[in-house]
Amino acid sequence: MSTGLRLFDLAGGDDDLRFSPNCWRTRLALAHKGVPVDTIAWRFTEKDAIARSGQGKVPVLVVGDKWLHESWAIAEYLEDNYPDRPSLFGCLQGRAVARFVNQWSSEVLHPAIARVIVPEIPAALHEKDREYFRRTREAAFGRSFEALAAERDEALAALSRTLAPLRSTLATQLFVAGAAPAYADHAVFGAFQWARVISSVALTPAADPISAWVERMLDAYDGLPRSAKRMTTV
Amino acid sequence: MSTGLRLFDLAGGDDDLRFSPNCWRTRLALAHKGVPVDTIAWRFTEKDAIARSGQGKVPVLVVGDKWLHESWAIAEYLEDNYPDRPSLFGCLQGRAVARFVNQWSSEVLHPAIARVIVPEIPAALHEKDREYFRRTREAAFGRSFEALAAERDEALAALSRTLAPLRSTLATQLFVAGAAPAYADHAVFGAFQWARVISSVALTPAADPISAWVERMLDAYDGLPRSAKRMTTV
Repeated sequence: MSTGLRLFDLAGGDDDLRFSPNCWRTRLALAHKGVPVDTIAWRFTEKDAIARSGQGKVPVLVVGDKWLHESWAIAEYLEDNYPDRPSLFGCLQGRAVARFVNQWSSEVLHPAIARVIVPEIPAALHEKDREYFRRTREAAFGRSFEALAAERDEALAALSRTLAPLRSTLATQLFVAGAAPAYADHAVFGAFQWARVISSVALTPAADPISAWVERMLDAYDGLPRSAKRMTTV
Repeated sequence: MSTGLRLFDLAGGDDDLRFSPNCWRTRLALAHKGVPVDTIAWRFTEKDAIARSGQGKVPVLVVGDKWLHESWAIAEYLEDNYPDRPSLFGCLQGRAVARFVNQWSSEVLHPAIARVIVPEIPAALHEKDREYFRRTREAAFGRSFEALAAERDEALAALSRTLAPLRSTLATQLFVAGAAPAYADHAVFGAFQWARVISSVALTPAADPISAWVERMLDAYDGLPRSAKRMTTV
């Protein structure tokens, strides 16, 4: 049965390959709230399909006649409109502070992970998205995917330095949000799931506290993240 | 009247010059809880005075026969032992997520600000601390204070990039913790107060949302941070 909620979710050449870090935030937030959703495979170049959201990126969540976009705004919407379900933030202070984690993930972690995995993404994409993706991303990085691929070891070392505050936090607590996962985890884990779906590279060594947290997150929400199709299994 | 609480607080050559970012976290947390404290001017080389804490760094907070150290551990102690006073974290989830902010401040922001201001610190120190400070910090940076001073413009540009997630967070909310300051703000602001006490350099341009937040923090807690003595006023 449809609940009416629909999520436009970035997909690869395979409809089931869902790799957007920002869409994963929303998937996990919906799972946290226990709100069922129908996901719709969407490609970068299908701007018309989400035009009613007033912009061109996913996640776009359709609730009745509302077309919500931007992962943080969607999380706040879910928190405010499903107040009797498990909280994404715990309290107002928790919400505000999670915003910083969200911004750190978007502005610092996503670029650091992109630098490692972005050359692998075109192989996963629908044919019609490949030219768009390469052109926009090579412009953003200021160099070709081939040049980026040659720098992967350096990119992994830089990522490890970037992860320092996450590592020390997870050395003393199970989740970013404490004893159980919540939106601060979704905001960060989305990027790890992105890498996991697209690439076979290990972002962190096995002994890193972050690796143990990734495993815990993969098992969360009845294993929803672990069940995601990956490039290596396509 | 003494309340019995005593804080060993890093001081410069002038007893009233209090510049440690980690001690400022504790000062602000105590002010937030409305708990009076006697601060004791302490210098880097006075390890014996705080030996009962089992280590050699400040803040050290003495409560009865307890010698507490490390700013985060002190914040948790205050939250747990003054539960009827204004909360530092809002809720357990807020506490856990604030831990990430604390780690980001300590591991990312402090080094980025140090790179800008550290060459100015020796002038502020007690004579007996200067050799210790220069030796340990030049070893940490792997270059002389003179070399660091020559890189200040580059260090300021790097700091501006480091501040991106704080900037975008404060573009949409008044404080890191939301509508009012709390420990997530103390953990970050301590570093700005460190720079303000030691240096006359502007870390952020006036139009930066971070600058407006710094002004709000200076006025918080009855203006305690703004009333601090600065090198420029010594």
